[in-house]
Formats: sequence, C-alpha cells, structure tokens
Amino acid sequence: MLDRLLMEAVVEAALREDAGTCDLTSEIVIPAQATARFIVNSRNDIVVAGIDAMIYAFRRRCADLRSELLAADGDSLARGSRIAIVEGRARDLLTAERTALNFIQHLSGIATLTATYVERIKGTKAALVDTRKTTPGLRALEKHAVSVGGARNHRLGLDDGIMIKDNHISVCGSIAAAVAVARAKVPLLTKIEVECDRVEQVEEALAAGADVIMLDNMALDDMRRAVALVAGKVPLEASGGVTLETIRAIAETGVDFISVSRITQSAPAVDIGLDAEIRG
Amino acid sequence: MLDRLLMEAVVEAALREDAGTCDLTSEIVIPAQATARFIVNSRNDIVVAGIDAMIYAFRRRCADLRSELLAADGDSLARGSRIAIVEGRARDLLTAERTALNFIQHLSGIATLTATYVERIKGTKAALVDTRKTTPGLRALEKHAVSVGGARNHRLGLDDGIMIKDNHISVCGSIAAAVAVARAKVPLLTKIEVECDRVEQVEEALAAGADVIMLDNMALDDMRRAVALVAGKVPLEASGGVTLETIRAIAETGVDFISVSRITQSAPAVDIGLDAEIRG
Amino acid sequence: MLDRLLMEAVVEAALREDAGTCDLTSEIVIPAQATARFIVNSRNDIVVAGIDAMIYAFRRRCADLRSELLAADGDSLARGSRIAIVEGRARDLLTAERTALNFIQHLSGIATLTATYVERIKGTKAALVDTRKTTPGLRALEKHAVSVGGARNHRLGLDDGIMIKDNHISVCGSIAAAVAVARAKVPLLTKIEVECDRVEQVEEALAAGADVIMLDNMALDDMRRAVALVAGKVPLEASGGVTLETIRAIAETGVDFISVSRITQSAPAVDIGLDAEIRG
Amino acid sequence: MLDRLLMEAVVEAALREDAGTCDLTSEIVIPAQATARFIVNSRNDIVVAGIDAMIYAFRRRCADLRSELLAADGDSLARGSRIAIVEGRARDLLTAERTALNFIQHLSGIATLTATYVERIKGTKAALVDTRKTTPGLRALEKHAVSVGGARNHRLGLDDGIMIKDNHISVCGSIAAAVAVARAKVPLLTKIEVECDRVEQVEEALAAGADVIMLDNMALDDMRRAVALVAGKVPLEASGGVTLETIRAIAETGVDFISVSRITQSAPAVDIGLDAEIRG
Amino acid sequence: MLDRLLMEAVVEAALREDAGTCDLTSEIVIPAQATARFIVNSRNDIVVAGIDAMIYAFRRRCADLRSELLAADGDSLARGSRIAIVEGRARDLLTAERTALNFIQHLSGIATLTATYVERIKGTKAALVDTRKTTPGLRALEKHAVSVGGARNHRLGLDDGIMIKDNHISVCGSIAAAVAVARAKVPLLTKIEVECDRVEQVEEALAAGADVIMLDNMALDDMRRAVALVAGKVPLEASGGVTLETIRAIAETGVDFISVSRITQSAPAVDIGLDAEIRG
Amino acid sequence: MLDRLLMEAVVEAALREDAGTCDLTSEIVIPAQATARFIVNSRNDIVVAGIDAMIYAFRRRCADLRSELLAADGDSLARGSRIAIVEGRARDLLTAERTALNFIQHLSGIATLTATYVERIKGTKAALVDTRKTTPGLRALEKHAVSVGGARNHRLGLDDGIMIKDNHISVCGSIAAAVAVARAKVPLLTKIEVECDRVEQVEEALAAGADVIMLDNMALDDMRRAVALVAGKVPLEASGGVTLETIRAIAETGVDFISVSRITQSAPAVDIGLDAEIRG
Repeated sequence: MLDRLLMEAVVEAALREDAGTCDLTSEIVIPAQATARFIVNSRNDIVVAGIDAMIYAFRRRCADLRSELLAADGDSLARGSRIAIVEGRARDLLTAERTALNFIQHLSGIATLTATYVERIKGTKAALVDTRKTTPGLRALEKHAVSVGGARNHRLGLDDGIMIKDNHISVCGSIAAAVAVARAKVPLLTKIEVECDRVEQVEEALAAGADVIMLDNMALDDMRRAVALVAGKVPLEASGGVTLETIRAIAETGVDFISVSRITQSAPAVDIGLDAEIRG
Repeated sequence: MLDRLLMEAVVEAALREDAGTCDLTSEIVIPAQATARFIVNSRNDIVVAGIDAMIYAFRRRCADLRSELLAADGDSLARGSRIAIVEGRARDLLTAERTALNFIQHLSGIATLTATYVERIKGTKAALVDTRKTTPGLRALEKHAVSVGGARNHRLGLDDGIMIKDNHISVCGSIAAAVAVARAKVPLLTKIEVECDRVEQVEEALAAGADVIMLDNMALDDMRRAVALVAGKVPLEASGGVTLETIRAIAETGVDFISVSRITQSAPAVDIGLDAEIRG
Repeated sequence: MLDRLLMEAVVEAALREDAGTCDLTSEIVIPAQATARFIVNSRNDIVVAGIDAMIYAFRRRCADLRSELLAADGDSLARGSRIAIVEGRARDLLTAERTALNFIQHLSGIATLTATYVERIKGTKAALVDTRKTTPGLRALEKHAVSVGGARNHRLGLDDGIMIKDNHISVCGSIAAAVAVARAKVPLLTKIEVECDRVEQVEEALAAGADVIMLDNMALDDMRRAVALVAGKVPLEASGGVTLETIRAIAETGVDFISVSRITQSAPAVDIGLDAEIRG
Repeated sequence: MLDRLLMEAVVEAALREDAGTCDLTSEIVIPAQATARFIVNSRNDIVVAGIDAMIYAFRRRCADLRSELLAADGDSLARGSRIAIVEGRARDLLTAERTALNFIQHLSGIATLTATYVERIKGTKAALVDTRKTTPGLRALEKHAVSVGGARNHRLGLDDGIMIKDNHISVCGSIAAAVAVARAKVPLLTKIEVECDRVEQVEEALAAGADVIMLDNMALDDMRRAVALVAGKVPLEASGGVTLETIRAIAETGVDFISVSRITQSAPAVDIGLDAEIRG
Repeated sequence: MLDRLLMEAVVEAALREDAGTCDLTSEIVIPAQATARFIVNSRNDIVVAGIDAMIYAFRRRCADLRSELLAADGDSLARGSRIAIVEGRARDLLTAERTALNFIQHLSGIATLTATYVERIKGTKAALVDTRKTTPGLRALEKHAVSVGGARNHRLGLDDGIMIKDNHISVCGSIAAAVAVARAKVPLLTKIEVECDRVEQVEEALAAGADVIMLDNMALDDMRRAVALVAGKVPLEASGGVTLETIRAIAETGVDFISVSRITQSAPAVDIGLDAEIRG
Repeated sequence: MLDRLLMEAVVEAALREDAGTCDLTSEIVIPAQATARFIVNSRNDIVVAGIDAMIYAFRRRCADLRSELLAADGDSLARGSRIAIVEGRARDLLTAERTALNFIQHLSGIATLTATYVERIKGTKAALVDTRKTTPGLRALEKHAVSVGGARNHRLGLDDGIMIKDNHISVCGSIAAAVAVARAKVPLLTKIEVECDRVEQVEEALAAGADVIMLDNMALDDMRRAVALVAGKVPLEASGGVTLETIRAIAETGVDFISVSRITQSAPAVDIGLDAEIRG
C-alpha cells in the first residue's frame, strides 16, 4: 500500500541528497570497470519493510542492475537472514549503498517495533493503528511499514479524515454542533472521529453521529465504561501515551483500536548490512 | 549550521505532504475568523533543536503570524519549559500544528540523545561525531540537530570527504595505492580518511598520508595501540556499534573522535506539545 | 476547502506556463512606470469560484498589488456584478491578466453548472456529488468549485476512499469477499463503497457491510427498489450518465447522493472580464 | 506538435495527483499477480486526441505494459470504435485508468468541438485559430488537440507573439507609435498583431506595418470593409464571441482567421471508456 | 525583457547549488548579529546587465536587505563605477555574495561583448542578433543581457520560430515544399526563416514566401547579390563564424541582421567586485 | 567525477528550456518516420568534455537511440576528429541537437582552456585549481570539465571547505581566533584555508593551524618568501588575477596550487559540429 511513483520520487531525492556533486570516493578510488555483488542481510531479528525502496535506490544508480529478492516486506527474519542480492557496476552500487540501507533500516525498524506492539495485543479484539506523527517527507513509506508490521493505518493526511478535538468543540459550542457542521460537508467516503476526554463526551459523540470515537488519555476504568456505553455501535480508539507496558491492559478494555505514535516517531533503526564482493 | 533556503523547502514539502488537498477538519469546523494562540512547551527534559523549522511551518501557513521565541536551539530545557508562543488565524495554525511539531520533536530527539552521549565522554579528549546514517530527506536538519546537541559533524555527503574502506583497498591493491589515487584528485579542502580493521593497517594508513584514520570495530586494546602508534600525528576516529554503555571506555583510549549512528538513526522523538487557546 | 499552498503552486505554474521567457508585449510596449486599475466583473449570471486563485495570480506577479474583494466564492452574481478591483504596476497586471481570468472563468463555470444541477433537485433529500473525472492538475481547485456551487465532494483521490466495482468483485469471488478484504485493511477513517448494477447486488453489499452503495446506471424502478431495500441503513449514490433532464426523477427515487461528472468535466467557462484603466 | 518531455511531466503529475499516498482499492482488493486487458473505445462520434498522453499514463504506471494502437490523433471515429488495447498488471492499469481517461476524454472533447467549428467554415478561405484561454497547466496539450482537430494555433504563450490592444495604444499615443516600439525590439521570428475595434484603426494598423490585424467584435459589415481595405496585404483575424451559429457568416466576409476561445475553454469531454477483462 | 518569476527561480536554484547543506564559513566564523554593507562596483569598463538577478540573490538570502541601485541594466559604466549598495545581516550577504556576483559578472560580460559588436556596425542598417547557442539553463537571462547590450533577440526557443535548414529541404524535396508545409501549420504569429547556402536558394526562398532569409556562411559577394536580389522584400540575416574582424564588412553588404553566437557562448566574464564593510 | 543523476536533471531541464511547447520546425517539417545519423566532430583542436551530457541529451529525446563513442572526456582531439555517432528518429535528434551541442561546446571549452593553463606550468610542482566562479546551475558539470582538463577542484560549494578571508579575520579579531572558532566546529573531513594578503599573515596562519594558506594577489617576491617560510608544512595556493602570461612565473615561486577563475568563467566555447544525414 504505497504508491510506486511517490516512493521512487522520495528515493531519488535521497540519492541526490547524499551524493551532492558526486561520490568522490567511488569516482576516484574505484575503477570504472569494476563490478560488485552485494548480499543484503539482516543482523537483527526483524520484520522487514522497504525492500522496494532499497532496490530502487540501487536500480536508479545502476543502469544494469541484476537483483534477486530473497524476502518480502512483512516477513519476519531471523538475524543472519539474506534479504536480497544485487549486482552491477561497483561505483554505482557503492554510491547507492548508504541511501539504500538508510531506507530499509529505518522502515524495517518501524515494521519491527510495530510487530512488537501487535504481538502484545494478540488475542484481544483491538487492532494497533498509527498516527500522523511521522517523519516529514516519509509519511507514505512509514505508513506502509506500519502496515506490513501488522497494524492498521489511521488518517494518511489532513484530507482523508475529520478529527474533532476539544478546541473544535469549544469553538462550535458542542460536540453535536461540531459533528453537524462536519457531516454537512465531509467528502462522501470520509469518516468523522470525535476525540473525547471524558465518558460523558462519548455519549454526546455517539448521539451526534460520530463514525469513530477516540478515548483520549482515559483511565482504564473510563475506557471500560465507554466500551459498555457504546456497545459496538461505532469503533472506539484508545489514544495517548500508550507504551509496550500499558498496551495489553488497554486492549483488554474492549476498545477496537489503539493508536501509538512511538511506532513511527521513535522506532530505532534495525541493523541491515551488506556483504560486498568487488572485482576490479 | 543549516541553510535556510534548504530548511524552508523541506518544511514546505512536509506541510503539503500532510495537508494534501486540504485540511478538512480545520476548513469545515473552524470559523474563518477564529484566532488562536499556541504556547509550545516541552513535556520532557530536552535539548531543543528545530525551532526555526517549527516557526517556519507556522509562518508558511499563517500569513499574519506573530511569534515570540522563548528558547534557542541547543538550550537544555527542563520539562514544562516554554519554547515559543505563536498567534494567528486558528485554521492556519491548526493545519500547521502537526507538521511543526513533527520537526521539533524529531530534531530535539536527536539533539537530546546526542547530548546524552556527549555527557558520557565529558572530560576525555574525544569528541562525538555523527554519520551518514540519517533519515532520507532530512540529512541537513539532522546534522544541525547533532551539532546543537554538542557533537561534531562528519561528512555531510559523499561529495565532501573521501572515505577509503576495505573494498577500496582490495581493489587498489594496498592502502598506499588507494590513498595515492585519492590524494591526486581530491578537491583541495577535502580530507582523506582510511578505515582500518587492524592496527597494522593503521600503520600503513599513517605512512600513506591519510588525513584521518578510522578504527573500525576495534577492541579497546587495539584502539590504545593505535593511539600510541599514531601519537597525535593525525586524528583517530573510533567507529562501530558504539552505545551509551561502551562509549566512555572508548573515549578513554585516547581516540579523537567517536562516531555514533544511533544519534541520528534511532533517537526517540521527545514530547513537545501545544497549549492552545482558540477564539471563535 | 482548498489548501492554500497547493493553490499557490498551481497558480504559479500557470503564470510561468503562459509567460515563458517573458511577456513580450507588456515588456516592450508598456512603460515601466505605468500603473493600472482593473475592475473584474461578471458578464454572465454566475456562481463565482476561484477568486483566491485569481487574486493570487495578480499578487504573485505584482509586488505592490492593492486589491479589494467585492464578492466571495459561492456568491450568485448577476451579469454585470463587480467581483474585485486590483491595482498595481501595469506591466505586471497585464502579464497576469489571462492566467488570472483563466482560473476564475473555469472554476466559476464549474460552480455555476453545479448550482444549476443542485437547483434541479432542491426539495428532495438527494445531494449532488462530484467524481474523479476532473481536469488533470486541477483536481483540488475543481473540487473546491463544486463545493462552493453547493454540491458535496466524493473521493478527493484514490487514497481516501475504497470503491469496489464489478472487476474487483469478479476477482475476489463475491461482494462479501471483496468487502471483507477491504474492511481488514482500510485506513480507519475511510469508507468502503460498493458499485452495484443490479438490485440483488445491493442486498449483498448491504449484508457485506458496505458503508455506501452505488447504484450504477440503474433504471428508476430499480433505484426505488434499492431505496426500499436499504431503508436508510447506508447512503445510496446514484451514478451514470445523469443529466439536467434526468436528475430530478432520480432524486425523487429517494437516493441520498447523485454523482455527476459533467459538472467538472464539461462545464463551459463563464465570461468574466476586466475593465482596465492604464495610466502611462 | 507537442513536446514529449513536457507531456510526460504533465501526465506524471496527474497520476500522482490522483493516487496521493496510494490507490487503496487496487492495492487492497486486487491480487498482486492479477493481469488485465483493457480495450479503449469511443462511446461518441469523436475526433480523437491525446492518445499519447493516455498511453503514457498506463506505461508510467505499468512497467510491463503491452499496448496496441488502433487509431491516431486526428482520426474521426464513429461511436463504438476501438482506440487502443493495453495489457499489463491489473493493479497498475486500474490505478492509471481514471487519469488516462481524463486526458483522452478532455483532449478529444477539444478536438471534436474544434472539428465541428472547422466543418462550419469549410469552403471559405478562413481558418479557425485558438486563443490563450486554455486550462491552466494544459496549454500545450490543448493546443495540440486544437491542431489535430483541424485548426491553427495562435500564440502559444506571451513570449511568442506581440499583441497590441487598446490599452497599449492609449499608453503609447497611437497605433503607429505602439507598432514602432514593438518593431524595434521584437524577436526576429515573431510577428506583431494589432487589435482593432473600428475600421479606421485597421487602416492605421496597416500603415503602421502590423503583421496581422485583429478585428475585435466587429459587425459583419465592418469586417467586409476591413477585408476590402486590407486587400490581402496582411492576414485578418476576426475575434470576439464567435459561436457555431455565427462563424459561417464571419468566414464569408473574407477574413483569414477566426479565433474561438470556446474550443479550449468550454469543450465538453467526450465519452471514452474501457472494456476491462481482469484475470486474478 | 525577462520574466521575473523565471529569473527568481534560476537565482534561487543557484543559491542552493552553491550553499548545499550550509555555508560553513559564514555560519561558523561570522557572529549571528554582525551586519555588513557591500558596495558593488565595476573593475572594468562594462555595459552592465543582471542587476535584478544580483539583487534578488542578496534579497532571497537576506530577509531585511536594504539596497540602493546606482545603475541600470544597459548602462555603460567606466571602471570604478558603483553599481549598487546592499546592506543587511553579514552572514546572509556573505553566503549570497559569490552567486550574486556570478550572475552579474556573466551577464555583464555578455552585454559588454554584445555592445562591442554593435559598435562595430554602427551607421550601417544591420542589427546584431543572438542565437540559441546559450548556456544551458540561462537562455532567458542571456537573451536579456544581449538585449540590454544593444542587440536583437532571435528565436527564444524551438517553439517560437520556424527555421528551415538544408536537411529539412532535402527531406521535403525543395524549399518551396518545405515552406508550404510550414506555412500550413505554423502558429499565427510565428515567422518562417529559410537558411540558404547559395544565392539561387535565396531566390527560391523568396518565391516560396519565406518571412526571413538566412545567408549561411556566404561570401561577401554572394551576400551583396542576395541583398540586390531580395531588394528589401524580406529581411536578410547573415550568419556563420562572424567575428569582430569580419562583422563590419558583412554589415556593409546591406543585410538586415547579423547573428553572432560568440556573444552568448564565448563572452568572458567582467570583473565586478565588492567593497565590504562588516561590523561584528 | 560528476553525479549522473545530477547531470541528467540538468540536461533534461535544458532540453525543456529549448523546446518549450514543442520544436515547431521538426514537428512540422520532418516526417515522423524519417531517421537520421549524426557524426559529431570537432572543428577545433580541443580537450573534450561533456560527452555524457551530450549523449544523454540525445538519448532523453530519442527513445531508440543508437550511439557509438569515439572519444572519451579528457582526450586531446585534433581538429576534424570524430567524437561520437548517434542514430535515431530524425525529429528527436534534431530537437536535441542544439542542447546537446551547447553542453559539449561549453564544457569542452572549459577543458581546453584548462589544459592550456596546465601546459604552461608543466614541470613545476604547482597544480592548477578552479574556483567557485562558475556558471549558475552548471557548477558540477564545469568542475568535471576542469578536472578532465587536467586541473584540480577547489571547493565544490560553501559546504565543503572553510575559507577565512580578511572580513572574517577582522570580525574575529585575529587569524588565530578565526581559525580556532572554525577548528572547533568544522566537519571532520573538511579543511580550513586562510587567505593572506601579506607574508606576516602567512606566519600567523601557519601558527594558527590552517590546513591550506592562500596567497591573495601577492607579488612574486612575497610568494617566494611565503614558500620559504612555510617550508612545505601546509600547501600554499596562489590566487588573484592569474593569466596565461603570469602563471608560469607564479608556479616557479614554489607554490603548490594556483587558482584561476578564467577557466570556468571566461572560457570560449569550442566549435563542435554535426555531419547529419537524414532519410525521409
């Protein structure tokens, strides 16, 4: 779930960001005719994401790239697993190397952390969802990594969801008024979510016709009351400071979705490296 | 140390990434004449970075922005500190909010982790440096965050440093040959670094005239032997899997620089939030 | 409901498209110090749209533009009504003129035709909606014009709605299977619509949990049967070859939405002109 | 007569406009390995234009596209005629479909309306020409459609023609003065046209050395007087509110060119559809 | 005669080309609060061109620039003349300095060499014109410099002139055939030029209705014969290897235009420098 | 030493700059099926540079280009030498021709002039270096041409070298202070150069730890004193108004580098032409 043209544009910009005027080392030190073969392998236990971006980084640099894929986005790979093999002109591959790895290390980091969160709530009815707290410029790629890590995507951007928060409510006068305004103008296939801090607001939001209700930073007891009150009429999303430690208990309250910003905003990169073989 | 035009272009792209066609919620739910006042404050103890990017995100959206800066990049702020105040049209500020925060949370995360590493090696002669393991598209902003966090920048890109690694050496036949090739063509103000896995290579690199020598994944004893051998003739950089746990011991070997990729690649975002006041 | 940064980028590209290397006539024939005052007025009865784009075209060209708005997007204006007054350097205004008018004539054409369709279904419960049959590059501006003309927006793009059509159904085996696949992965605030050619499919789609059901090219009788069958559980959208002649009868079947591609794809431009006064 | 690189850039931007983050429906509902075959056919009697743009939209999405062209730009096609066949990965073709059709429907609409106008003046010496009243961003593609519809192109942009209008004349003092200024600086291969409202001005323009003279909103009698007066020394262009009803009489006055903005600004899209066959 | 938006885009790209990630020297060595005042003066006798581009380079970098213009494009300035004064933040001005000067030195070089050629043909009826042999990316700016240097512009690009050369003629069969094809399709305000190597071709071109005739690498005698033959019916352009030594004799043959590629392709930069005053 | 992606982007922009809406002549006059074969040859004695850019210009236009390279960048070619052969669709090659030649003529001009300067200092220890006085937008391509002409590159941009000049020194108080500030923050692989006007400053710069010292506009005697004083501890660069007449004497003072701006800023284009063969 990632537009290929968009991914290619992001990768190309990153290649140019790294190379600037030129890759001095490769151009000066590596003979033009040298060829290389890189085996990409994982040095951690990971859920892999971003293989396409990595391969495109090599391909955009290396006109005659030969590549072989040994894994697919979403695969759980044990440390030492081989992900892909790429072969081509050594200069080109070396110039692409760091950018290619930056993508797959970052995106696999997100997929791996996502999978860890998903694992914690296994067996509950709750699904993990992401947020708009993504790295500037990488929204679509990170949402894709979240998806292959086993979570669901929340809004992709400000244009495909209505999210009514406390400030909107206070300006409009009431949840009912805010939802009514939104309902009258929202695009036909877009839902309206209302953020509630208190259980009474959940009741109002339900009555107002919200499509989804967010329970923002609520105590577990309040979440349970909200779940009981809504009784499955609309999905409930728990949100706010959720961690690996707290997510299971939240899931067990019976909410439908739990949103976590850490999976995109604070996922450490995983270690994916290259075994390179270069022939002058 | 960040080009303003480049920063503005990155911020503008991120604003458009988030908004897409339009910010449905603000446009539909917030009256056109409503104004808002946001106090940006830190909810963690942080070293702040990215204030300019945050302010530009608000300014680019909000033609009549009034802003007041209460901190500067590089400041250590205790939880609860106020960073800035921004005022303007409510719709515009709300549309910019998430993007503005994404920048400052990410960059302050990097500055804060950098400062933590720097703190560990205080009192030694070693300086912390970053790597090219940065987030695609954000290289310059992240290098700036590293810098305000108290570390030094390594290469900004492939065009401003020569880094000779094992593959280059094997293709060229020897360190001496590789350095000679590089020395003959390198731009006038650019240094040549040689990556060494073993102490004997350090000796060769020194003899070959390397400007900087990297000790790659060496044991502490080997680092100490390299320090003794080089005796201050050129700077030594220790590299490879350095963590908060291992960095002090490395610094005490007497190396000049220690490079850490985690500070850019795996820094968790810090929590910086807004207290918003909106008047319909 | 139109992102300002996106609109400005579209207008700037159009200004450069028209001028190329330079506006030969203005640069050669108009003295540098000449000033001009343009009164923009409507030469048809219209619903106006695109005033912001028009003004931005003048402002981007003319650094010292003074402008006065005499109407707002969505206003119904009688022939001869004044829309705005712009004043500034004559060369700049003349260079911008054609591009500025091209936007407002095209977008007001869409708003005006939209309003005509909306008028036809007044008093029914049906609302008019647009489609993705828009002019390449102008999607967001045209959707905005549709909105100010009194209709609702359908999907803004492929990323904010799921639309399951006959081909999807045949590949998946059944409507139930297709909706289930979609439901499992769709972003949290995005709805799923199922396109039905026959009333039996409407029943299946309802059972499958579609959020919206499209009645594609159905006869009026079938629409009425679908309305009865669905009984308000989900919105129904009538689609397919709807014209000013047929829309009223369709609305009276009781459907919730009627989508019309003609309003964006085939709206004639309206005549909006300038009364110019130039002082050498 | 359309630069391929320019066309490709416009098409690619349109593909990305439509897809945004990704085509949710195709990515979620269509299996990765499914293939499709689309037969593009006309559902109206049309003059076709924009086949290249349509094919490029499919090709840019679909790396392994096979395509067969069954018509060429400028062909008059009866309802039901097949235009092209495209085959490839189903997901890719479905993602491209709407954008591909938006181009060919819009451009064929222009070519078809152009041909209708051209038909009306058959047998006279007048040729139809377009104007700069084109859709922002699509100037070159629309001028191409006009051309394959059988008309001539007027100025492509402000940089390849001098057009002296009443305002220019009043600032310069006289037609003679304005033409003299222009003649002294105009690029070597660019002509100068003077817009005249009255027959006396035609005389002045002729004497001043205009290369082309526009008769702006003149009555038929005045046009005939102008034709007699100019006697073939320079081409005459009739302009202003020309419709299908009035164009024949204008052509019969003996003018050389008749410019019509409706052909680009108000041409309804034609109906071109796909017969799709998808194999899971 | 240079589109401001185009000029600004070119200047901004050049500023970013030079600065890359950041201007290390200014950022590190110059205190943030330091201000500077630069007097821009000419160190050669020149015809100045590119003042707008230079000022925009300073202004785009320096938000609070104060500037004073002491000359205008096209002025002949003696060595030591002051062109402008700019004041603002020292860091910003120093970062812009080299780019600003690169524009004005290059463009004034073109204007100055152009003026030298123009001087040589003073008193003849011939005018100097440029060619499409310009520096990639700077076409419009260089054509502007040519214009302020006193010459005329030939085609701005491939889209605003028809130039029929020997290859075209051989493919079409004859000059008459080639001109007829062109005449039937050329945009309304665009002229057709025919390149002739021999005087007989001039006769053919005249008969075929060429708007302009180029005498390509003809001997002076042949030029004179062509002038006599054409007798003022259409303009004649002499072209091919024209130098400062040969241009006068060519002009005296009676041709109307002489095109010279050296003025854009081989003009040495002039020396324009800054007297800087920086206050910490 | 030139990033391929960057080169391709520059060439593509230049192709679009030249063609604008379309290449009228080729599109109108050359039949679609005509093919052409161009032999590119040098009409001067040159050092060739820019072959890749030239070939890419043809290839980007001509989908089925066949090309054969008969020379390589850096080759010294006698007048009349063949550089390459390109074959393909005639329209495409003709559209690309001027842009392709503009690149190779300009870049070979730089390489050729560079080689002339290099020849003058043969046998001395001095190497020629370029400056940042390059043509806006072509920095990387011109630096590449300088390199293949036999000279070394100085800074590629403001981000890969520190250059401390008189203004920096006066703001900082002393050379020592300025170098200390720079040393503390400069990226790890970037050198610091100090510009000196007087020999005493050279002594200060050496003591301060400059990596490179520039002798700016010094008399030959002063240069010799500086060489003696520095005694090979750091490289010395002579700079300022160096010409073909003066460079030898400067080289003989014993400096290590001599920088010349003329090679990029004032190199006349060389004459490289096409022998074309077109078959209808």
